[in-house]
Amino acid sequence: MLPEIKTYHAIAAEKRAQQWGKIPKNWRIPTERFHNDTNVMDIPLTCGLLNETESIITSNYDATTLLEKLKAGVWSVEQVTVAFCKRAAIAQQLTNCLTEIFFDDAIERAKKLDLEYDPKSRGKAPPPLFGLPISLKDSFQFCGYDTSTGLGCYVDKPAEDNSALAAMLIDLGAVLYCKTNLPQSIMTGDSDNNVFGRTLNPRNKLLTAGGSTGGEGALLALRGSLLGVGTDIGGSIRVPSVCNGIYGLRPSVGLVRHGGVRDLTPPGTDGIRSTAGPMATSLRDCSLFLKSILQADTWMYDSTSISIPWVDLKPRHKLRIGVALDDGVYTPSPPVRRGLKQAIDLLRGNNDIQLIPVNLPDVKLHCQDLVSYLALSGSHHYYEQFARTNEPVIPSLKAIGLLSVPGTTLQGLFDLNVRRAEAAKTYLKLFRDHDLDVILMPPAPHTALPLDCWTKATYTGLWNYLDYPAIVIPVDQVRDIDSADDLSNAKFGPDDERLYSLYTGPEQYRGAPVSIQVVGYRHKDEALTKAAAVLDSIINKI
Amino acid sequence: MLPEIKTYHAIAAEKRAQQWGKIPKNWRIPTERFHNDTNVMDIPLTCGLLNETESIITSNYDATTLLEKLKAGVWSVEQVTVAFCKRAAIAQQLTNCLTEIFFDDAIERAKKLDLEYDPKSRGKAPPPLFGLPISLKDSFQFCGYDTSTGLGCYVDKPAEDNSALAAMLIDLGAVLYCKTNLPQSIMTGDSDNNVFGRTLNPRNKLLTAGGSTGGEGALLALRGSLLGVGTDIGGSIRVPSVCNGIYGLRPSVGLVRHGGVRDLTPPGTDGIRSTAGPMATSLRDCSLFLKSILQADTWMYDSTSISIPWVDLKPRHKLRIGVALDDGVYTPSPPVRRGLKQAIDLLRGNNDIQLIPVNLPDVKLHCQDLVSYLALSGSHHYYEQFARTNEPVIPSLKAIGLLSVPGTTLQGLFDLNVRRAEAAKTYLKLFRDHDLDVILMPPAPHTALPLDCWTKATYTGLWNYLDYPAIVIPVDQVRDIDSADDLSNAKFGPDDERLYSLYTGPEQYRGAPVSIQVVGYRHKDEALTKAAAVLDSIINKI
Repeated sequence: MLPEIKTYHAIAAEKRAQQWGKIPKNWRIPTERFHNDTNVMDIPLTCGLLNETESIITSNYDATTLLEKLKAGVWSVEQVTVAFCKRAAIAQQLTNCLTEIFFDDAIERAKKLDLEYDPKSRGKAPPPLFGLPISLKDSFQFCGYDTSTGLGCYVDKPAEDNSALAAMLIDLGAVLYCKTNLPQSIMTGDSDNNVFGRTLNPRNKLLTAGGSTGGEGALLALRGSLLGVGTDIGGSIRVPSVCNGIYGLRPSVGLVRHGGVRDLTPPGTDGIRSTAGPMATSLRDCSLFLKSILQADTWMYDSTSISIPWVDLKPRHKLRIGVALDDGVYTPSPPVRRGLKQAIDLLRGNNDIQLIPVNLPDVKLHCQDLVSYLALSGSHHYYEQFARTNEPVIPSLKAIGLLSVPGTTLQGLFDLNVRRAEAAKTYLKLFRDHDLDVILMPPAPHTALPLDCWTKATYTGLWNYLDYPAIVIPVDQVRDIDSADDLSNAKFGPDDERLYSLYTGPEQYRGAPVSIQVVGYRHKDEALTKAAAVLDSIINKI
Repeated sequence: MLPEIKTYHAIAAEKRAQQWGKIPKNWRIPTERFHNDTNVMDIPLTCGLLNETESIITSNYDATTLLEKLKAGVWSVEQVTVAFCKRAAIAQQLTNCLTEIFFDDAIERAKKLDLEYDPKSRGKAPPPLFGLPISLKDSFQFCGYDTSTGLGCYVDKPAEDNSALAAMLIDLGAVLYCKTNLPQSIMTGDSDNNVFGRTLNPRNKLLTAGGSTGGEGALLALRGSLLGVGTDIGGSIRVPSVCNGIYGLRPSVGLVRHGGVRDLTPPGTDGIRSTAGPMATSLRDCSLFLKSILQADTWMYDSTSISIPWVDLKPRHKLRIGVALDDGVYTPSPPVRRGLKQAIDLLRGNNDIQLIPVNLPDVKLHCQDLVSYLALSGSHHYYEQFARTNEPVIPSLKAIGLLSVPGTTLQGLFDLNVRRAEAAKTYLKLFRDHDLDVILMPPAPHTALPLDCWTKATYTGLWNYLDYPAIVIPVDQVRDIDSADDLSNAKFGPDDERLYSLYTGPEQYRGAPVSIQVVGYRHKDEALTKAAAVLDSIINKI
């Protein structure tokens, strides 16, 4: 007799009931009232759940300022923690952005931190991230809670250890309070799975919240968190940053601790590695995160880390910015083109910036190879994990086609490595010959798309293939002037035309953020954050 | 009709005649007079070729001091270059340590440097490595000369570019003047091949000069160079450093530029990567090399580099040194045990040192996996390269058994990766739990061995497997007190016994240096050099 399979239906129902139980009764809001709102961005402040102080704490600052206020004792860690737990609970009820909820543990830890460090007594110096609430993508292990990544087969298997980054953030003084939603397979642009369901985009529920770190994206957009941690193997930090209008940094592989993070590819297939990085409401918060980690003596947390220290670089006086208007594979849609042009115009007027037009060579080929790297063993391992609880493939995973990529052989892997080494030389030459600090380009050929339509990731994936750090900066949103234009503007063939046709004009895309991407050279992550800060200050007049 | 194969005999004869032609007639010495000397260490100074200034320049300093004198204008770059070319020519005639000889280009470059920078005029500041002669292992490309690596099939194919490191060293002001010998396959402990023949150990010609960077080893021992560059994928810098009684640093992979270096493994098989590093007559010269490279903005030379900056770390006040008396696979021979004990005794008497006994887990398994990584595709590619000129396999390559390791599959590679990731965790824990700065251990279970007997590299290879930086420090040489002892002292089984039995007493091993190995954590190369300098100063009373 075969062992009876517990199907995902039953697992999901139990899991979601538990999850609901983790939201205190007096933190529940009448969500049915907002069901028909496509934009729920205002609800956290209008729903009446947050008191005035909580509204101020969660609305008025970025993590950098909040941290200063925590260290100055303006509010207790407990006050700040409760405020963000509440606001995260609201975000969850509006967008389904959370997976594991551990508000109780967080508040308890906050109380302990308050006791241990009293900023007013000038006793013990507070740790670098003292009392700062930080949210994590579900794939990070947090002791005592599942790391299901939205798969039924991993539910009810609580982690026995913290992942390296979680352990480190705790040691640095942060308060962890929830984990966030992601797609089945952690590989798509829609954070949708059979256990937790789909995360919605709070700016426009008809558009995707992005993936794979889409839960963070929605949570941050609603300011249920100021600093979240995602992972990125093809765009998983940057895509939801675009969709939700936040900042997101994909660091070079190994700089931020990635030990003890569940990813679903077969163990040992490390041709392309996932990297952990910050998502935030300001660029300097991304820098704060990276700096806090690189300044700490962090080699001891993770045997896979690359210990590049933060050295307080000064950006050079006149930054040289390569500008790539497209990636030669997909034509940016009208709002994306306008956003980039707007940014370029602002930069062009600045004496400290030199803009150099560049072309990105062979992006299509490189992204085909990226997909081959991501499916070295084919798709059997995914099906095997899904089959354990009889769960169906989510639509966005079907749509990206990853499950039908055939695996390869050892020689096939070597061939991929050889081609990538050549590509790395070509792109080094591009940076070197033009003496570039960074490249400015769109983060995608489009804004957030309707559900399950985000199937291409060439603009982000190229940099995973090459392992270059890249940061997304929101610069605007879709406006009435962004009319759809003729398909003949799609310059790169039928596939491009098909994607280009998805932009139907501002009506369908109302509220969709428009962002740019700034890309640095491999391992020059600190330099990237500094250059990006200069660009951000000019473009967003910060 | 098949194309006629030009056999290695003819190729080697031509190549060696060319090589001989590169040694000016008045730099030739009556080598037949020294044929019966097993130790030729004194010949450079007694053969009468070097004038007094050349003797002083090449005998009295390490690279760090010589560089200071060059920058101070004590001697011209030309004087220094000619002195080292001459002494290298002597070393070549005594030990057959060179492959490509480009003394003429070097002297021409020296003259240019003298014209461009006149230290006495206080004009243009000299570059960091101003005028310093540096020798390179044959596998580095130097424009206009072969990178044959001792294989007939690559002879008469002059390089069109400099390898990344050669280009960088030139930009830093160094003078490159020769390349050095290595084994067929670049994988064995005897620098012997069918084109250039075998390099001899100048301290005892009956013992191996080591490999694969054996030419550098012999050249440095004879002070035909003060700073050489080798590569190390299993011990290839450290083994010849042991055999020749010099210092040798294997950096973490990627820190020192490795682009454009020929290695003979199939392209794309980068599970274990070779790393480039310095060999020198002092420890601070190894640091000088690493510092010069890490301080320069070197990302631009090589797309595979890992840019970890040199940050002028201070070593902590009380160093914590893990001590591993053996690797649990092979028992150190009597002189190696004595050398290590001597070092430990000196350290034990020092208040700034804490010694912590450690065991190295599972070295045998890890080194078996290292071999599997080095033969992922089996040995076909070696045979194919040898067959092009009909050349036989050299005895030491037969002896190490690499050619009979079967290749593996893609899944086999993933399994290796998984096991290595586990090992990396275990060794991180070892460093972390004992709060170690470095590990002190032998660099091998024996000293330089008789020809073609160095077949095991567990003491060095473990650190390639884990990618930890490691440095060899000479501490003594075999002495009369180092009697052979009973085979029952070999604790780890028949294989160990067989290796242990090679030590027959001091007579056969006269002049063989005794060294220690100091191992740092991955990417903490700067910290390793600083800790090693402290140990060196205590042990060698420098």
